[in-house]
Amino acid sequence: MAKQRIVIKLSGSLFSFDTQVKALRDYTQLIKKIANEYQPIIVTGGGRIARFYIDLSREMGLDESGLDLTGIMVSHLNAKLLMSGLGDLCHPTTPKNLDEISTAVNSEKIIITGGLYPGQSTNATSALIAERTGAIKFFNATDVDGIYDSDPRTNKNAVLFDSIKVTDCIDMLRKENSIAGTYDLMDLISLKVIQRSRLPCVVFKSSVENIEKIVLRGIRLGTEITISS
Amino acid sequence: MAKQRIVIKLSGSLFSFDTQVKALRDYTQLIKKIANEYQPIIVTGGGRIARFYIDLSREMGLDESGLDLTGIMVSHLNAKLLMSGLGDLCHPTTPKNLDEISTAVNSEKIIITGGLYPGQSTNATSALIAERTGAIKFFNATDVDGIYDSDPRTNKNAVLFDSIKVTDCIDMLRKENSIAGTYDLMDLISLKVIQRSRLPCVVFKSSVENIEKIVLRGIRLGTEITISS
Amino acid sequence: MAKQRIVIKLSGSLFSFDTQVKALRDYTQLIKKIANEYQPIIVTGGGRIARFYIDLSREMGLDESGLDLTGIMVSHLNAKLLMSGLGDLCHPTTPKNLDEISTAVNSEKIIITGGLYPGQSTNATSALIAERTGAIKFFNATDVDGIYDSDPRTNKNAVLFDSIKVTDCIDMLRKENSIAGTYDLMDLISLKVIQRSRLPCVVFKSSVENIEKIVLRGIRLGTEITISS
Amino acid sequence: MAKQRIVIKLSGSLFSFDTQVKALRDYTQLIKKIANEYQPIIVTGGGRIARFYIDLSREMGLDESGLDLTGIMVSHLNAKLLMSGLGDLCHPTTPKNLDEISTAVNSEKIIITGGLYPGQSTNATSALIAERTGAIKFFNATDVDGIYDSDPRTNKNAVLFDSIKVTDCIDMLRKENSIAGTYDLMDLISLKVIQRSRLPCVVFKSSVENIEKIVLRGIRLGTEITISS
Amino acid sequence: MAKQRIVIKLSGSLFSFDTQVKALRDYTQLIKKIANEYQPIIVTGGGRIARFYIDLSREMGLDESGLDLTGIMVSHLNAKLLMSGLGDLCHPTTPKNLDEISTAVNSEKIIITGGLYPGQSTNATSALIAERTGAIKFFNATDVDGIYDSDPRTNKNAVLFDSIKVTDCIDMLRKENSIAGTYDLMDLISLKVIQRSRLPCVVFKSSVENIEKIVLRGIRLGTEITISS
Amino acid sequence: MAKQRIVIKLSGSLFSFDTQVKALRDYTQLIKKIANEYQPIIVTGGGRIARFYIDLSREMGLDESGLDLTGIMVSHLNAKLLMSGLGDLCHPTTPKNLDEISTAVNSEKIIITGGLYPGQSTNATSALIAERTGAIKFFNATDVDGIYDSDPRTNKNAVLFDSIKVTDCIDMLRKENSIAGTYDLMDLISLKVIQRSRLPCVVFKSSVENIEKIVLRGIRLGTEITISS
Repeated sequence: MAKQRIVIKLSGSLFSFDTQVKALRDYTQLIKKIANEYQPIIVTGGGRIARFYIDLSREMGLDESGLDLTGIMVSHLNAKLLMSGLGDLCHPTTPKNLDEISTAVNSEKIIITGGLYPGQSTNATSALIAERTGAIKFFNATDVDGIYDSDPRTNKNAVLFDSIKVTDCIDMLRKENSIAGTYDLMDLISLKVIQRSRLPCVVFKSSVENIEKIVLRGIRLGTEITISS
Repeated sequence: MAKQRIVIKLSGSLFSFDTQVKALRDYTQLIKKIANEYQPIIVTGGGRIARFYIDLSREMGLDESGLDLTGIMVSHLNAKLLMSGLGDLCHPTTPKNLDEISTAVNSEKIIITGGLYPGQSTNATSALIAERTGAIKFFNATDVDGIYDSDPRTNKNAVLFDSIKVTDCIDMLRKENSIAGTYDLMDLISLKVIQRSRLPCVVFKSSVENIEKIVLRGIRLGTEITISS
Repeated sequence: MAKQRIVIKLSGSLFSFDTQVKALRDYTQLIKKIANEYQPIIVTGGGRIARFYIDLSREMGLDESGLDLTGIMVSHLNAKLLMSGLGDLCHPTTPKNLDEISTAVNSEKIIITGGLYPGQSTNATSALIAERTGAIKFFNATDVDGIYDSDPRTNKNAVLFDSIKVTDCIDMLRKENSIAGTYDLMDLISLKVIQRSRLPCVVFKSSVENIEKIVLRGIRLGTEITISS
Repeated sequence: MAKQRIVIKLSGSLFSFDTQVKALRDYTQLIKKIANEYQPIIVTGGGRIARFYIDLSREMGLDESGLDLTGIMVSHLNAKLLMSGLGDLCHPTTPKNLDEISTAVNSEKIIITGGLYPGQSTNATSALIAERTGAIKFFNATDVDGIYDSDPRTNKNAVLFDSIKVTDCIDMLRKENSIAGTYDLMDLISLKVIQRSRLPCVVFKSSVENIEKIVLRGIRLGTEITISS
Repeated sequence: MAKQRIVIKLSGSLFSFDTQVKALRDYTQLIKKIANEYQPIIVTGGGRIARFYIDLSREMGLDESGLDLTGIMVSHLNAKLLMSGLGDLCHPTTPKNLDEISTAVNSEKIIITGGLYPGQSTNATSALIAERTGAIKFFNATDVDGIYDSDPRTNKNAVLFDSIKVTDCIDMLRKENSIAGTYDLMDLISLKVIQRSRLPCVVFKSSVENIEKIVLRGIRLGTEITISS
Repeated sequence: MAKQRIVIKLSGSLFSFDTQVKALRDYTQLIKKIANEYQPIIVTGGGRIARFYIDLSREMGLDESGLDLTGIMVSHLNAKLLMSGLGDLCHPTTPKNLDEISTAVNSEKIIITGGLYPGQSTNATSALIAERTGAIKFFNATDVDGIYDSDPRTNKNAVLFDSIKVTDCIDMLRKENSIAGTYDLMDLISLKVIQRSRLPCVVFKSSVENIEKIVLRGIRLGTEITISS
């Protein structure tokens, strides 16, 4: 019987001009381990190299949608880099749209891809992928510890939510223009996708240890986004 | 010299099970007239036939992203229907993504397309297309007269804005969960694209007469979304 | 060992503006049952929604080949609707040509598709698909009971053939311009494909019960088209 | 203003193992001349090299649809050979379906292609292309002088029609299983396409001289297929 | 567990205007036998039919890269011919680039393809394919017995190497402009790919018997190209 | 009349982690100027960012052909960066193979692309593109001043050739394993393409000033590779 699918969004911060092979290898070892239990679909962000190309292109006069496409291209380059350590365990190309995702998961291999559509964060894209592939959970491995009640960078007493209802999360995002300390984490499209599909989601700080704990050992970390019944 | 480009989002309400050829012909005659002055890029919605397929598919168990893809397919069928009356004046296929849009506009012909990406309204897609093709304005021909200060369906005294700043519009959308009476008109992504690219946009009630007035005769109608300097 | 393949052409009459989810679900339940014994390749027609778009487009001035392409697009929309109830049992996209069919059947999943080529009925296309995939039989589920010796709508005494040689069928079609009561059922290309590949074929009235009887329980129904030795 | 389009089906007999460059050059010179007055769309047959591959593949066990695909591939190889002498006057690739044809004619260059769809003769495909591109006439350059009232190979007194109504032509084809002496010339699909689109068509013996006379100098040759009013 | 992969380059000399079905069948029988032990990836050359099209096209004025593309097209036609005898044991299409190769090998079926890229011999392409798919060996079945120390056609005393270091082979090729008697066998790109990936390779005279001996029965034949430690 | 085409290979050294927008703008200004006289086809290398991804991927275990594909991807990212400053003067996508190049040049716009095929340097690819598009000259803008008679880095007295026959250049490359000081400049495939197509080529140190001098002002620089009559 086919394994259950999970989607893991990997923060683009893993990919930078000073990325070391050691860090990448730790991630691919972990992904192999995960693949013993689930069919993982990994979505990589663009990170600093994307920002480098985007900043230069914007200065050169490229329109914002064009910049989105550039960011997507770099995220696929990052995806290919991660695939380098997985050989035949991994689907050999990075899917470019939801139809290619649907066909790729047929192979029952590990899927690694980047952003798919302009005008959409890789978070939102990850949520769509989870929805389309019937994934049982969306693990959002980010640069912060989870969702706070206020911005932890400016408010020492900010409290990390253990869990938050998706409707409350949407309200926070609407009112504050961004969820405290989590701008970029969970944008409105991601949340609406989570809501419409009742997709379990957890937001937590990305590290090999944390992903292993939360995905493979069932240890609670970060913030669960819950669906009100 | 190549003509300036404009994007017109055509409400899906034009396309339904009782659509008459007369209505479609009026629109194609108008598009031909517009093409004498601009290179129009028309984006059609899915309308009632999309909702028919989506409702059935959802009941059958299709996931929400899959439903988005179904809606996109119907919007392209609608686009092809509109193309039927334009012959060689029109690019012969409906572009499927921003790269195909970019290549199609090279032909300097009329472009007709539908939705492009799951997780995105055709409004948001239209804004991205305007951005990517360097269009000078985004004309959003909708089912209502424009943007109101409260919901005109429940509040008799609701006032139609003649113009509204994009930032105010985003604030309204955040606070009210939808702009009064305009849910579906201008969602958050559309507004953010308009804002980031300083793209002139007007929202007005779709009719052949209104489009002709506003696009070709410079008559003000509906609500202009302005970019604060 | 891979299951044997069969091709089932599903009359487009299943798909209309008043199609109920119950009817579709009965078909998907049946297809699942069939998939326990065979690898089914289902080809859906365009039905009334196709005719709606075609009629309007023709009035608008679209050429006949363009209309064929429109009909094909609607048949794929119908195919997707049917796929909505099959989840991972089904190949995730509707193949667009014979090469895509060949690749899709590799997955050993249920394949659902619509028309493939302009200038060809979905019957003819189904016969080509059966030929290309080495299917053991082509089940043509239509709107009539089978092939008659004269038109049953005008001749009360018309007799339904239990079986008919493909050569006789071709002769009838040539002489009468259409086989009595079966115009659209088996056009000349379908018959020639059946003949050239000695492909077993049966024509019968489409219903969940009939398909189950004929495909799964070996009960004879409608008209077998036989290949003269 | 764009030139009017014509479709010329070139008999595959031009392409064989003993084809001389002189013969090909005569054809490309002629095509260049035609391109001064029209936008020619040339459709090449597969000829003897196609039959060579098809015969071997059939003996090897390939199914008939697969053989059709092989024949199409060789016809495109022949198309490319003809393109070799036309350089930038010619669209640089051979379109593979009607959508690619529609896009290619946008370039206003000479278009050269081969067969497009399995289960269809290149005659039928040529008629579809003429229909789709709004060509003003379909010139069918074949291996015989035109359409006879009986088979000229067996009946010395067979009479060549100067013109024949498409409906009479379809009747002949139905009754005789093939039009006398013209099997392969105009099959039923080609005739039905001609009929449905009221497409002017002429069938004549292929030679550089004949094509020049009939296309460029308005000299009547072969058999005109007329559309009854 | 998936079978190990091997790449076999089949000399184009198998494909000619007088090719007999018997010869092809012997090869497909052999390939089936090999497929019991390995996942074979077969790369076919263009042979005499490619040269026929290339010679004519060059005389017509086609540029050299265009000629490369023509040769590639014929090699795929040859690949399809070989596939005709393999049915469902074989991946149903001939991959057109390395990404398609990578996806095709996922099916664990026999893969048959032709040349992939202009400016590259099928030998070089075969080496790239071996590298990309992690094949354990590249079997180069050619028109000569292996690699000689001088040209055996002019020097009676030419000695066939039993094995040769890839570095020595590259030196010979550099100095002599071609390896004695092996021009076309192993060009510089093939050798550099072999070297950079430490890919075991053997060059030998193509025949069903020889391929069987060397691939299946471990009998040494021709010249092994070894990688210096 | 269409402008004559030229191919300019741009050294990847323009693209690095410290690339400034000023340098890129100087190049796009120059390309615009060139486009007044010619249709330029620019081929960008991968540079240091390619090497960064390649080095990491190799350490991760990616095969060498996979690394080639990674390098090609980065070269297209660089191409897009350069396109950012050219707007509608530039074909909107970076062609991915010779067929896409052929279609793109039809637009008569500036074409910018990167590497096309694994196993081939961007120099070799540039030569193939020049050949395929009928470009009148291949300008190879590199990191060194041209071709020397010995390695200028180790031999102070190395002499820069003003011109060199392509046959002599090939001989040097064979004998020395690389042309002195020009390893990577002109590899064997590039030279063989130049030779087979008698393609004029010049190798010189890349700078805006040098490209302007040599392309627009007819000033001789670097080393001309001549074709012996």
